[in-house]
Amino acid sequence: MGNTVTGKVTLPTVTLESGIQLKNVTLAYEKAGTKLGDPILICHALTGNQHAVGTEKEPGWWRGLIHHGGHIDLNKHQVITFNVLGGCNGSTGPTSPVSGEESGTPYRTDLPFISVRDMVNTQRLALELLGIKHLRAVVGGSLGGMQVLEWAILYPDFIDRIVVMAATSELSDYGMAYNAIARKAIVEDKNWNMGYYSETQFPSSGLAIARMIGMITYRSDRLFNQRFHREEKDPWGGFHKEVAYQVESYLLYQGEKFTKRFDPNSYLYLLKAMDHHDIAKGRGSLKDVLSRFKKKVELVAFEGDLLYPSDEVKRLGQLWREVGADVSFNEVETVFGHDGFLTEYEKWGNIVKAAVD
Amino acid sequence: MGNTVTGKVTLPTVTLESGIQLKNVTLAYEKAGTKLGDPILICHALTGNQHAVGTEKEPGWWRGLIHHGGHIDLNKHQVITFNVLGGCNGSTGPTSPVSGEESGTPYRTDLPFISVRDMVNTQRLALELLGIKHLRAVVGGSLGGMQVLEWAILYPDFIDRIVVMAATSELSDYGMAYNAIARKAIVEDKNWNMGYYSETQFPSSGLAIARMIGMITYRSDRLFNQRFHREEKDPWGGFHKEVAYQVESYLLYQGEKFTKRFDPNSYLYLLKAMDHHDIAKGRGSLKDVLSRFKKKVELVAFEGDLLYPSDEVKRLGQLWREVGADVSFNEVETVFGHDGFLTEYEKWGNIVKAAVD
Repeated sequence: MGNTVTGKVTLPTVTLESGIQLKNVTLAYEKAGTKLGDPILICHALTGNQHAVGTEKEPGWWRGLIHHGGHIDLNKHQVITFNVLGGCNGSTGPTSPVSGEESGTPYRTDLPFISVRDMVNTQRLALELLGIKHLRAVVGGSLGGMQVLEWAILYPDFIDRIVVMAATSELSDYGMAYNAIARKAIVEDKNWNMGYYSETQFPSSGLAIARMIGMITYRSDRLFNQRFHREEKDPWGGFHKEVAYQVESYLLYQGEKFTKRFDPNSYLYLLKAMDHHDIAKGRGSLKDVLSRFKKKVELVAFEGDLLYPSDEVKRLGQLWREVGADVSFNEVETVFGHDGFLTEYEKWGNIVKAAVD
Repeated sequence: MGNTVTGKVTLPTVTLESGIQLKNVTLAYEKAGTKLGDPILICHALTGNQHAVGTEKEPGWWRGLIHHGGHIDLNKHQVITFNVLGGCNGSTGPTSPVSGEESGTPYRTDLPFISVRDMVNTQRLALELLGIKHLRAVVGGSLGGMQVLEWAILYPDFIDRIVVMAATSELSDYGMAYNAIARKAIVEDKNWNMGYYSETQFPSSGLAIARMIGMITYRSDRLFNQRFHREEKDPWGGFHKEVAYQVESYLLYQGEKFTKRFDPNSYLYLLKAMDHHDIAKGRGSLKDVLSRFKKKVELVAFEGDLLYPSDEVKRLGQLWREVGADVSFNEVETVFGHDGFLTEYEKWGNIVKAAVD
């Protein structure tokens, strides 16, 4: 049962969307499940990584969905997940050595801009090196969903079906606004130092603020209000004789916790990649672009998703259907909002199961 | 016509909700219009001030609503507006001298916590010193609306009617979450120095980030998306060969601009006052509390208001009606969201006119 393996693939040269070439590009991956046919590719979200399944001892972020007997059933399928290009969990990103050699100087902010298309192109090349010539499905949510969309447009022949969750055809200006504030918080941190920080002089405050900004967009207002109902932490105490509230304490804790597991420069690059996400960009009308992929498209939206509203996902589905794709659209009723794709598998797991089986 | 006057009132002693006493409390005010009967009190929002009407040369923030012949008609009414206690436009706040003497050391963060009730209590005392014994109406939006609600509960006999815009009976946890992040951005600024900053070592980055966080809650997602439609500022330029977008540039500009006109400590105090806003707190059930004021209650909500949703304002109206008040509720259709109360007067000005005339 414990057939989760991890590994790395190194690509000698990658040409980015910007035209810049990168040498010795590494992608870290995880593979799990039973190889009976073409594998399913999983794409992770902003703060995710290649450990979608993980092990019993250290479960991955989507293990609730993907396990033996799960909605994505590892008895039937093999899944593979890459850490994205620009990430900080083993794939080439700001913390990686420029030379590709372990001991080399890291890129930091000298890494060129990475787009979602670059993430997908490198995954495609890495799959080839791993001997994978076709995918049964590509599945992902949020930034993962953006990659899935790009997969469909860039490599329609390589894949049979896609499952896109909590993502739209382009990031809205409203979404970019949140990203802009998060970036500003990081680069204004007294320790950021143009990206040349150290472990002891680390921009933790800025990264914590960036994470807190993320948190309020990942969860719906209803969830916040139901969970905390203005619960007090410290009534009429403190230096100024004011009341402190649990919601603040929770957010500060989440922000702080995040700084232990994520690289601030990598966060900047990935936010910027999200800003740039627009499947029609440079390719003509959205309708023309969508007509490149006419196979099975499963779209899942989550009620109360602030940044990727159901209506926008639905609109994408309608357009895609008009050009001849086999589209299903489902909106999941939830108080979780955007983060719905990371929880309550009993509500929507069967939609994914039906799409990939 | 140019009958706008400004002035200051000083209260020898004020006892705050926390029990702490403040000496020599000053409230700065603006009066405008024709004194024919009892005046109308205007309460300002978070970053507002006493200059609601202003002059032709320097129009105040609500001059579109309040002028000669306006929806609040200065030919018929006199309006008075105070800068809130804790503010930074002439009323006692973190920048004011502890002693009350101009040249004295400022409070900075030694000022005790100020609540919305404290703001209202001091306004009540200041009105008395100005010889005003009764108000025709109290009108305000957002933090101003919170003050209006407290006015109704604390001094029902002093006022005849209220107009509450874009405000709810208590701030939601979701609202507190945004405030928590804004405060964190200010106190983590390298120049904040526990509130003992100087003009040359000023926490402008933190205050700018706090303002940017405010901006995304004041305007609806639709407005952001309609205004910018992913317009590029700098295509494939910059250090990293990435695309920059107008929405980011706009937000950075707004953040920077705000640092020229607002005190960071004052911003912290006012956010904290908003967190604490809950008209039922310490007074029993919300229904019992609402039954203290059974006169005319005009509630105005704005479509797409992220922090003070129409449904919540409507619910407040229903409850208030049940206890016998004369309640009207209106939701204004708008793409502006929360900031609707500062614009599009043609849409809702007549509601206010009907309520106060």
